[in-house]
Amino acid sequence: MVSLNRRYTFQVGDALANERTLTLSSGSNEGYLISLRPFVHPNASENEFPFEWGFAGPPASAKVGKKDSETDTIDFNFEFDTNVHLKLENTHRGVINTFWKTWESGLIEERGQVFPFGADKAGIEFFELWQPLDSTRPDYVALDENSANQETARSVVLTVDSTDFRGLVITVGRWVQGILFKKSENTIKGINFLRAVEQQDGSWKTLLNYGSDFDKFPQSFVAPLHAAIEGSSALTWKVVESNI
Amino acid sequence: MVSLNRRYTFQVGDALANERTLTLSSGSNEGYLISLRPFVHPNASENEFPFEWGFAGPPASAKVGKKDSETDTIDFNFEFDTNVHLKLENTHRGVINTFWKTWESGLIEERGQVFPFGADKAGIEFFELWQPLDSTRPDYVALDENSANQETARSVVLTVDSTDFRGLVITVGRWVQGILFKKSENTIKGINFLRAVEQQDGSWKTLLNYGSDFDKFPQSFVAPLHAAIEGSSALTWKVVESNI
Repeated sequence: MVSLNRRYTFQVGDALANERTLTLSSGSNEGYLISLRPFVHPNASENEFPFEWGFAGPPASAKVGKKDSETDTIDFNFEFDTNVHLKLENTHRGVINTFWKTWESGLIEERGQVFPFGADKAGIEFFELWQPLDSTRPDYVALDENSANQETARSVVLTVDSTDFRGLVITVGRWVQGILFKKSENTIKGINFLRAVEQQDGSWKTLLNYGSDFDKFPQSFVAPLHAAIEGSSALTWKVVESNI
Repeated sequence: MVSLNRRYTFQVGDALANERTLTLSSGSNEGYLISLRPFVHPNASENEFPFEWGFAGPPASAKVGKKDSETDTIDFNFEFDTNVHLKLENTHRGVINTFWKTWESGLIEERGQVFPFGADKAGIEFFELWQPLDSTRPDYVALDENSANQETARSVVLTVDSTDFRGLVITVGRWVQGILFKKSENTIKGINFLRAVEQQDGSWKTLLNYGSDFDKFPQSFVAPLHAAIEGSSALTWKVVESNI
């Protein structure tokens, strides 16, 4: 089953609920995941890197369990994490334990704690609220009983791990999100993001285009397993999952 | 401008955020409003009347103002209020002062206080989070820059005020919601709700059908100003607003 979730609330510690980003989290049939969190209206200090956060990883990045009949657990440990790549101080490292409840309305509550000052220091609680979307539609359409079956929706995952770059691009339904790190460049110049959506006519509309190596992302996203796909700058991506 | 907002969070007092309903609030071009709040999975005690609340009113029901540059105020005083019609104890009476902020993501925060134990007793704070929808689409599609212009979207308002009944039906875009009270029946038998959406093929799909006098709702919702429309049980509705 694929998932495409849009975040509707982010609440940290004692702050009031808010949502300044257009965050989408994608999950492939086989459990690859990516979450890109661009600010909608970045302020002056955010302009150069207008993202709250971005992370991604293979299925092993998210260990799924159950706390009780109403609560799922996911223990995240991301292979791609912009905070880690940027070596930002006072940001969390390692596993994040999260607790998930589906509300009667179909919205999904996520709660957890992060430890930005170290695992032995006080944690900070967070609450995020997610709306599952119909990944087969090119607009932000809430998932409901009229939606296409997300169990069988398309998902394709591309990866690259070269001398200089590592990246992950996940397509679920009509939506693609990608992250590409330049290994030796631990500044915002080493981070690239892609978000695009396939329109009704089959063309791809780019929604996020960030980073000096953006042209190394693949130009097409849907291919059979084990295919090799080149970006326009000759970086070769490998198809590691293909449900098409 | 019409509005069609879906509620994504309801938080009261010290309780955790939640959303158990599929609440839609409609506002017509001229300021008629209706909000119907059906439980998605009513529990045993809610089965007979599976609604958190329903209210509606003419433009005078909502006095709009400004608290500061970021905060709008709306002082509500509903002409139709299920709590009042049912004479429920420990529910609010009279004006409700609310404060509205639009988040950068486009979600809309509403905060306020209700006084269920009387205006001289302690108030209870509430927080509601709203997602504006594209009223011209038959699914729950988030309003964004690709949406149709809601400034000029269709709105039609029908009212009835007979010896026995009073009611209000509001169409915005493809969505219709209606409320009908039997004046002398201050029980749930005196309350009727309608929600329907116009499909792509022009047919209307009923989403909410509640009440023993449901057949007194009009069968068509779009008509020119001052037209008279009959329900199947010979109650005559009058068109008081028509932007078609």
